[in-house]
Amino acid sequence: MTTQHVAPVAPRPSSPGHGAQAPISLTDYRITSGFWADFQRLNRDAIIPHCDESLERVGWVGNFRAAERGTLATERVGRLFTDSELYKTMEAMAWENAREAAPDLVARLAEHADLLARVQAEDGYLNTFYGYDGGPERYSDMEWGHELYCAGHLLQAAVAVMRTDGPEVLVDVARRLADHICDQFGPGRHESLCGHPEIETALVELYRATGERRYLDQAALFVERRGHQILADTMYKGRDYYQDNEPVRTAEVLVGHSVRALYLAAGALDVAVETGDDELFTAVRAQYDRTLERRTYLTGAMGSNHHGETYGDDFELPSERAYAETCASVASVHVAWRLLLATGDARYADVIERTLYNSVVSSPSVDGRSFFYVNALQRRAPGIDPEPGVPSLRRTDGTRAPWFTTSCCPTNIARLMSSLSAYVASVDATGVHLHQYAEGSLETTFGAGRRVRLSVTTSYPHDGAITVCVDETDGGEWDLSLRVPAWSRASTLIVDGEARAVPHGEVTISRAWAVGDEVRLELDVSPRFVHPDPRIDHVRGCVAVERGPLVYAIESVDQPGLDLDLVAIDVAHAPVDSTASVGIDGVTPVTVKGVAHAVSAATWPYGEQAPPASSTATDLTLVPYFRWANRGKSTMRVWTPRVDVLSH
Amino acid sequence: MTTQHVAPVAPRPSSPGHGAQAPISLTDYRITSGFWADFQRLNRDAIIPHCDESLERVGWVGNFRAAERGTLATERVGRLFTDSELYKTMEAMAWENAREAAPDLVARLAEHADLLARVQAEDGYLNTFYGYDGGPERYSDMEWGHELYCAGHLLQAAVAVMRTDGPEVLVDVARRLADHICDQFGPGRHESLCGHPEIETALVELYRATGERRYLDQAALFVERRGHQILADTMYKGRDYYQDNEPVRTAEVLVGHSVRALYLAAGALDVAVETGDDELFTAVRAQYDRTLERRTYLTGAMGSNHHGETYGDDFELPSERAYAETCASVASVHVAWRLLLATGDARYADVIERTLYNSVVSSPSVDGRSFFYVNALQRRAPGIDPEPGVPSLRRTDGTRAPWFTTSCCPTNIARLMSSLSAYVASVDATGVHLHQYAEGSLETTFGAGRRVRLSVTTSYPHDGAITVCVDETDGGEWDLSLRVPAWSRASTLIVDGEARAVPHGEVTISRAWAVGDEVRLELDVSPRFVHPDPRIDHVRGCVAVERGPLVYAIESVDQPGLDLDLVAIDVAHAPVDSTASVGIDGVTPVTVKGVAHAVSAATWPYGEQAPPASSTATDLTLVPYFRWANRGKSTMRVWTPRVDVLSH
Repeated sequence: MTTQHVAPVAPRPSSPGHGAQAPISLTDYRITSGFWADFQRLNRDAIIPHCDESLERVGWVGNFRAAERGTLATERVGRLFTDSELYKTMEAMAWENAREAAPDLVARLAEHADLLARVQAEDGYLNTFYGYDGGPERYSDMEWGHELYCAGHLLQAAVAVMRTDGPEVLVDVARRLADHICDQFGPGRHESLCGHPEIETALVELYRATGERRYLDQAALFVERRGHQILADTMYKGRDYYQDNEPVRTAEVLVGHSVRALYLAAGALDVAVETGDDELFTAVRAQYDRTLERRTYLTGAMGSNHHGETYGDDFELPSERAYAETCASVASVHVAWRLLLATGDARYADVIERTLYNSVVSSPSVDGRSFFYVNALQRRAPGIDPEPGVPSLRRTDGTRAPWFTTSCCPTNIARLMSSLSAYVASVDATGVHLHQYAEGSLETTFGAGRRVRLSVTTSYPHDGAITVCVDETDGGEWDLSLRVPAWSRASTLIVDGEARAVPHGEVTISRAWAVGDEVRLELDVSPRFVHPDPRIDHVRGCVAVERGPLVYAIESVDQPGLDLDLVAIDVAHAPVDSTASVGIDGVTPVTVKGVAHAVSAATWPYGEQAPPASSTATDLTLVPYFRWANRGKSTMRVWTPRVDVLSH
Repeated sequence: MTTQHVAPVAPRPSSPGHGAQAPISLTDYRITSGFWADFQRLNRDAIIPHCDESLERVGWVGNFRAAERGTLATERVGRLFTDSELYKTMEAMAWENAREAAPDLVARLAEHADLLARVQAEDGYLNTFYGYDGGPERYSDMEWGHELYCAGHLLQAAVAVMRTDGPEVLVDVARRLADHICDQFGPGRHESLCGHPEIETALVELYRATGERRYLDQAALFVERRGHQILADTMYKGRDYYQDNEPVRTAEVLVGHSVRALYLAAGALDVAVETGDDELFTAVRAQYDRTLERRTYLTGAMGSNHHGETYGDDFELPSERAYAETCASVASVHVAWRLLLATGDARYADVIERTLYNSVVSSPSVDGRSFFYVNALQRRAPGIDPEPGVPSLRRTDGTRAPWFTTSCCPTNIARLMSSLSAYVASVDATGVHLHQYAEGSLETTFGAGRRVRLSVTTSYPHDGAITVCVDETDGGEWDLSLRVPAWSRASTLIVDGEARAVPHGEVTISRAWAVGDEVRLELDVSPRFVHPDPRIDHVRGCVAVERGPLVYAIESVDQPGLDLDLVAIDVAHAPVDSTASVGIDGVTPVTVKGVAHAVSAATWPYGEQAPPASSTATDLTLVPYFRWANRGKSTMRVWTPRVDVLSH
């Protein structure tokens, strides 16, 4: 890690004190149109209001009112971690208001903050599930209780408020709660930790926002405590379920519940960066790298198993029944972002891009009012319809639901989308890095207050051409770095009318820029086949299709009459853009050549001969994976057998 | 169904009043040596004593003593269904004593029966988890409570006692309990049903043993009630988890928790047979047939998912992380046996054979004192060692454990193995059917008391030759039917020195037999490749190896230095018997030609090219699947990629 000091307070979700690169503020980059602008609008107009309304409808805000009235014993509703959903929604409201003034959201945020202030206990404790007369005692269930998890999300909401001039009262609430936690769990006190990591990264961020060293020390202590079997063994799942099987410092790969593992990794990286703990940093980076190498879906999603919501073994990546929780994808973006800032390795920006396009935005429906909790890569049977108005008990992988009894995913989408602009670019001592491509403008400073303004013109990801224009500069030399994604087979950089091929990674142009200077990067977004590592048993003999950063899927809606269990792709013919009308706005369908098989009926699905099959040539139409299941119930697959394998 | 009346009381686990064939008694067939004799000895010497000792050690017998003392409120241990494990062990003791006198087991059985009689409530209720002062109320949790499930196992133990001259007191206990249940849940009373089916088949069998029609009517009522959403929706799993989503009469395939589904199917078939309800019979048969066709593992195991212990969608049959619970295999044998007797279709005897050899006996270790709860078909990473002396919380798929917090599997093995001889043959009006092949002798009657005695000489499944000799006959004409397994590629029947090829199914020789007449059946047990249906995504491009009725597996112990994630089989060379010493008694290893691949390191497991791989030719040694994980921790796979697919 090189060292780069950054301003302590500005609207950005993570603000490390050191690193190869420093984050911009989310207000520095204005996304004006295109893919991400559309999603940010959806987030503002639908997702955030939907979360806020749902929280009222199901009574999870009401729990705080019951706490105020002292009637929790008879009136509390929902599972033990529902408080956190309000906090995440409040965080989203704060970022969203910074992005673009939103008086309605601010009013609600202030209302919620006031309520929390009235409910908070004298000693700073705040939780509606524990610690009231007739309820379970505070910290009586560290394994499952989620108290520090909920607290962490409150701290993060308060940090967002601090950095966006939100209601000051929430900051007081958060500091009192954080002080209470340090008092309770400090050295020599209650030597325990929370079954669900989250407090670690939250305490570090609160330290960054306030300068209060105590919070950092407490975060470091929580990270060090984990892995020493302090928590009880879990029923069926083992202590690796909550990463208490092995110290963070010596673990080799992410294990157990994927969201817990990734929240912990983010917190451990934050601690390592702030304390200069290279050993810890290197260990967590290696864990994440190995997880990318062996335990990550093509979509960037993580977590193979419904049972325990856990990572599988290396290369255990089933497409059907994949858990691939939305929250794990959000958390993976957080981890990759921390690694990108700390190391400057553009590979992590590739991971962020892949994850955002394919397993974050796959969660919300086109109307932003229902969500996938799990993001499976194959669906054999049409899903079930959620019961209207009732939070879904099930994390079905076939249809989206408006809300869940455990509803962590919608609010996580809300807070990430509202702060998304902060992840688009970063700066260092000598210039600017563009990591993600979205039409808009960047106005920021780097080095010792050197000011720069750029505009980006692109219809990415539909098209691979990105034009960057310098709109303001100080006349001195500085570096403009552009990410060249690994998926682009041929990438061309055009500067001053001269084109040259550039390899993937990052390309840096160093010069004394003048206003009006233009740089154009042309990436090859034409559709392509992708093959899996042979050790991934579940997709052996299959190919997938990608186009630019988007993973594509075959959905039954687009192949009437075909059984998706029996189609195959002919890889001898390259996939091509299609002009078919698929009834989804703003996407480019892709066509491949393939066959539809028919198999004869059998009473036993195994035999001495590969089953005789007759085949009919057919074209198959693919749509971006993130848009599947928006046209009624359907079946779907990302990985499809190659004709040469299925015909054997 | 044709009609065949059978004697009401004899040592047999299921005694239908009608059917194409009638069961023999387990005392009719004496298995004297070979594969099943070895397992029955293991069951008698190790498995049954281990279950009985474990029940004492973990306090599950102690719960009944605490009930007697009135101290359950402070002393009860274990989960809510532990009573059933004692009942299943008692059932095993009764059958085992009938098979071969076992005074020690009878003494324990009587001791347990006396204890139950002392504990049973005045009104017949009997359960250590519910209904005592300070405990949960009787029938307060029909969804999860398992009260009728436990009761069902007690009834089955009592039926075994009735049919084997065991302690009469247990029969009284069972009748009082059954009467209590009929009083509580009869028409117009508590209109509910148990979340875990089992009472249905138990009540029918008690009706068969006692002639008490009320029990049959109550069983029929429980079957009819199911599927009408009487039970609450389950968290995450849906009502299909306990088959309360759709009436048994209209369902099309087995769904949800596989053991529940199969216990229900057995009970529904029993009801259908006794009441002559052809519609119900046909529906359940079709459900099971479709389940065999689309939802069954090569090993005969059922239940794809750890989450909910459920069936997957059609063709969703992952090898790794397969649940494939031992109890589901035991239950599938029960269902297939009922269908075989009712229809006479030899295909169900094939299913029984496959399931017994490959997913029932795979559970116990060679010493009969540890067990697989789940029987996965692939294991990528070596399992974990169970903690000595502590019931395992985890249903690991890599190593066996001596006991589980939910320990249904060991006791299910015990009761099936002790009654196994009853499943070997059956009779009808005109003769004898041999379904399974084991060295021994059959002495039984058919038709109007016609007596026959046969001896069977074979070293099956090691060898495919089976010789049947008539040792006693009445001189009249009768039919000897022998099953010809579907897996045998070439089968020869030799009668009077004349050989003829016979197709799979059943071959019947009708003649006036004389003492000393011999029939010889020669099955082809040479090893062979088996290919999967192309719709089973998880094993696409793979082959498995079978030899006779045994499914084989590649275990890491036998291929030192090779990574089982990167081996492939060359199907151009037929598998052959091997003379390699594998350190497992009584099995014939098999060798195949194959390759070991090496792949270059990559930071992302997907790419535009199928990953470059170098290959080294190698022989691979396979052992019978049921014997894997008996030589230390290892990795294993049943399905292995074909060279031509992995090399693409």
